[in-house]
Amino acid sequence: MSKFSEWFHNILIEAEIIDTRYPIKGMHVWLPQGFQIRKNALKLLKSILDEDHEEVLFPLLIPEDELAKEAIHVKGFEEEVYWITHGGLTPLGKKLALRPTSETAMYPMFALWVRSHQDLPLRFYQVVNTFRYETKHTRPLIRVREITTFKEAHTVHATSQEAEEQVERAVEIYSSFFDLMGIPYVVTRRPDWDKFPGADYTMAFDTLLPDGKTLQIGTVHNLGQTFAQTFQITYETEDGQHEYVYQTCYGLSDRIIASIIGVHGDEGGLSLPPAVAPYQVVIVPIIFKEGAQEVLDFCSQVKNQLSRAGIRVHLDSRDLRAGKKFYEWEMRGVPLRIEIGPREIREGKMVLKRRDTPDKETVECREDELAELVEDRLGRISSHLKEKAWNMLQENMKETDSPLEARDIIQEDGGVVSFLWCGDEACGKELEEQVHVDILGIQEDADGTCVNCKQKARYRALLARTY
Amino acid sequence: MSKFSEWFHNILIEAEIIDTRYPIKGMHVWLPQGFQIRKNALKLLKSILDEDHEEVLFPLLIPEDELAKEAIHVKGFEEEVYWITHGGLTPLGKKLALRPTSETAMYPMFALWVRSHQDLPLRFYQVVNTFRYETKHTRPLIRVREITTFKEAHTVHATSQEAEEQVERAVEIYSSFFDLMGIPYVVTRRPDWDKFPGADYTMAFDTLLPDGKTLQIGTVHNLGQTFAQTFQITYETEDGQHEYVYQTCYGLSDRIIASIIGVHGDEGGLSLPPAVAPYQVVIVPIIFKEGAQEVLDFCSQVKNQLSRAGIRVHLDSRDLRAGKKFYEWEMRGVPLRIEIGPREIREGKMVLKRRDTPDKETVECREDELAELVEDRLGRISSHLKEKAWNMLQENMKETDSPLEARDIIQEDGGVVSFLWCGDEACGKELEEQVHVDILGIQEDADGTCVNCKQKARYRALLARTY
Repeated sequence: MSKFSEWFHNILIEAEIIDTRYPIKGMHVWLPQGFQIRKNALKLLKSILDEDHEEVLFPLLIPEDELAKEAIHVKGFEEEVYWITHGGLTPLGKKLALRPTSETAMYPMFALWVRSHQDLPLRFYQVVNTFRYETKHTRPLIRVREITTFKEAHTVHATSQEAEEQVERAVEIYSSFFDLMGIPYVVTRRPDWDKFPGADYTMAFDTLLPDGKTLQIGTVHNLGQTFAQTFQITYETEDGQHEYVYQTCYGLSDRIIASIIGVHGDEGGLSLPPAVAPYQVVIVPIIFKEGAQEVLDFCSQVKNQLSRAGIRVHLDSRDLRAGKKFYEWEMRGVPLRIEIGPREIREGKMVLKRRDTPDKETVECREDELAELVEDRLGRISSHLKEKAWNMLQENMKETDSPLEARDIIQEDGGVVSFLWCGDEACGKELEEQVHVDILGIQEDADGTCVNCKQKARYRALLARTY
Repeated sequence: MSKFSEWFHNILIEAEIIDTRYPIKGMHVWLPQGFQIRKNALKLLKSILDEDHEEVLFPLLIPEDELAKEAIHVKGFEEEVYWITHGGLTPLGKKLALRPTSETAMYPMFALWVRSHQDLPLRFYQVVNTFRYETKHTRPLIRVREITTFKEAHTVHATSQEAEEQVERAVEIYSSFFDLMGIPYVVTRRPDWDKFPGADYTMAFDTLLPDGKTLQIGTVHNLGQTFAQTFQITYETEDGQHEYVYQTCYGLSDRIIASIIGVHGDEGGLSLPPAVAPYQVVIVPIIFKEGAQEVLDFCSQVKNQLSRAGIRVHLDSRDLRAGKKFYEWEMRGVPLRIEIGPREIREGKMVLKRRDTPDKETVECREDELAELVEDRLGRISSHLKEKAWNMLQENMKETDSPLEARDIIQEDGGVVSFLWCGDEACGKELEEQVHVDILGIQEDADGTCVNCKQKARYRALLARTY
């Protein structure tokens, strides 16, 4: 286990994010703290999606024959699908699959819903649990058998161009979402051999974890007309023709939470972006034998003021040493701590300690400016976490024109290496073999010479060790 | 199919609540309109629960051996459990059950979590999908094979008395929740032969649907120490003894939505309580050839004012006849319609039409009083829907001292009949047989003579035809 792996596993337990002791491999329990982070992240995401998507909820189970209809798709998932064979003591006439993803659950219904060009476009999403019988080593929030937080969007369009535009729009949506949480990312178009089963092409978001490996945190697929033809999803055009629709789908998973934890955390534990922190502020009263009640009352007033302003704030009035509380809330990643003792009350001040910086700051504690001051600091914390994380990614992105150098860089430092590539599958796979890492995907068109086969390069592409 | 059954099935489709054409019996698709009602109802519920419960999320799948540990419990569910036998093409070493409810998923973890009396009480809840292989006739939102909205709470206590108090508290919580939506209910203690498998006793909420049958809409179980003993959930007391905990659990399902629809709806379609309506207000501009833009602009201002006040409002500016819009929004159950045309603008007025009453009302449309006025009307609608529904329930609750009369009342009018009962199981089952309906449960202690066996009565009990 790498140092990061160990840190990640420990912090999940110590900060009570999930319990990994559930008696099925790759399936875990969300604890209250973790659940709140997940809930806040989903709330951010939904506030963006709800602008032009509608939320729906499809059944978990898919009949065997529907799942099997789209041959390329089912082949991509056949080794990972959980099968239900019995209801009670009775064998089922038709096996039922637990959705690995919902194309084959949704698209037969889309075929019923889409009639005319006036019905289009359609943009739906749902947040559900999905299942994959992973045979690789599982890892909480990263590689699991029950994906508990699968946000999948599915859209239907009249033209190829609209589907292309939707792919761009989805990339924008996910970018905004990750930006709100300060998660840095590279966006690439996956190589053809690594695209979603059934898609024309796949765009992917990857972030970089502290061990130098990238983590895929979101994907956007242009499905073209593949599924439309399989499931007979057609619409009547203005002049009465019947045409197949064009589709896209795009998804996020529990890895959202893994990346929040992995990207921002440090040796002190979690460091949560204010946007998703269960408590954005914790108030720790500094209590001496005398005047304890006065301090508690004052802290309570401060708490109520912040709470009224919509800030998620907690007053820790437990009978414990302040140092122990500091340690605990730092470990849990609360972005801002306020310390107030008799001296602060006397001087009309309070002490602020940001989770993301080492220094303490003593500020005036004026009722009329309190909420504004705290919101300002939370804003600075968000910006600083984001900036730090993007710097880390950028420092670990290197260019090379030599496969051997690429291999050395990644072996020694990890990170992402960019290079010029011809785009040919055989060449790409040969390169992966040689460098012992994966081609994440292509970023842009480029001129020059392919780093491997020395033919004309078509793209700038990225290599990285991946989760 | 009864008239109500037909109405219920049709309105689900016409108002786009769910799509019943999914290709697995008893599993349905939540459409955007239905999903919003569900979401609003869950939001109300969570706002109550979050006061002293923590939200968690457990895995869907339960290993065969855990499910089988509590013998009485598993017997209650063995004919209803869906079994997974394969992961991909590989037979699983141990079969996995889809949770029919989560006691056997949660309680092995509780055994790890509870150490000392200081850890208690614990109060958790989750909102998840659960599965039951129903062999009876299925019916959308009422008897389904995938319960998509299973809210289950589970609590752990040091003493029997605290568990008793939690049962009372849960009854209060559910009462408040149903009150917010104007759903009337009777609360009874279920007969012993109808309690939750593994519980000491079960309290249940039933509402009355327009066809005279009652629908169980919530249950609260005192589990005593049964599961604590099975799963070895113990705590250390203050003086170092190890004791089994006491537990309760309580649940709600998709029937929440069925009752909102069934209780308040009428021949015009849905009639939604403002607390859960996706749109609380719809504005229909009354447009003539001249001055159309002015009307639309004015309506748009009204919309923005209401929206800023936190009211869920929609401006229907489609190019359709107003009458068609009226029909559609009434059928979808929008509580309040505002009509504004050139005449209203000239006179500084607007027309209000409540979904729950036949009359229209013309009121001053003053910017500074607009939101308050609309909120007042929404409040009146909530109260009136609730009052109407409770009246309907009370009118259909009758007392009798004769089993034959009970049978006749229920056969002719449906509803709920109360009677005096000795509480004996053999007598109760004989009575059920004779009257051809079920004993819902007991409501209070009573003196007198048992309506059936003529022995000393111990309880007032209720009879009804049930879903």
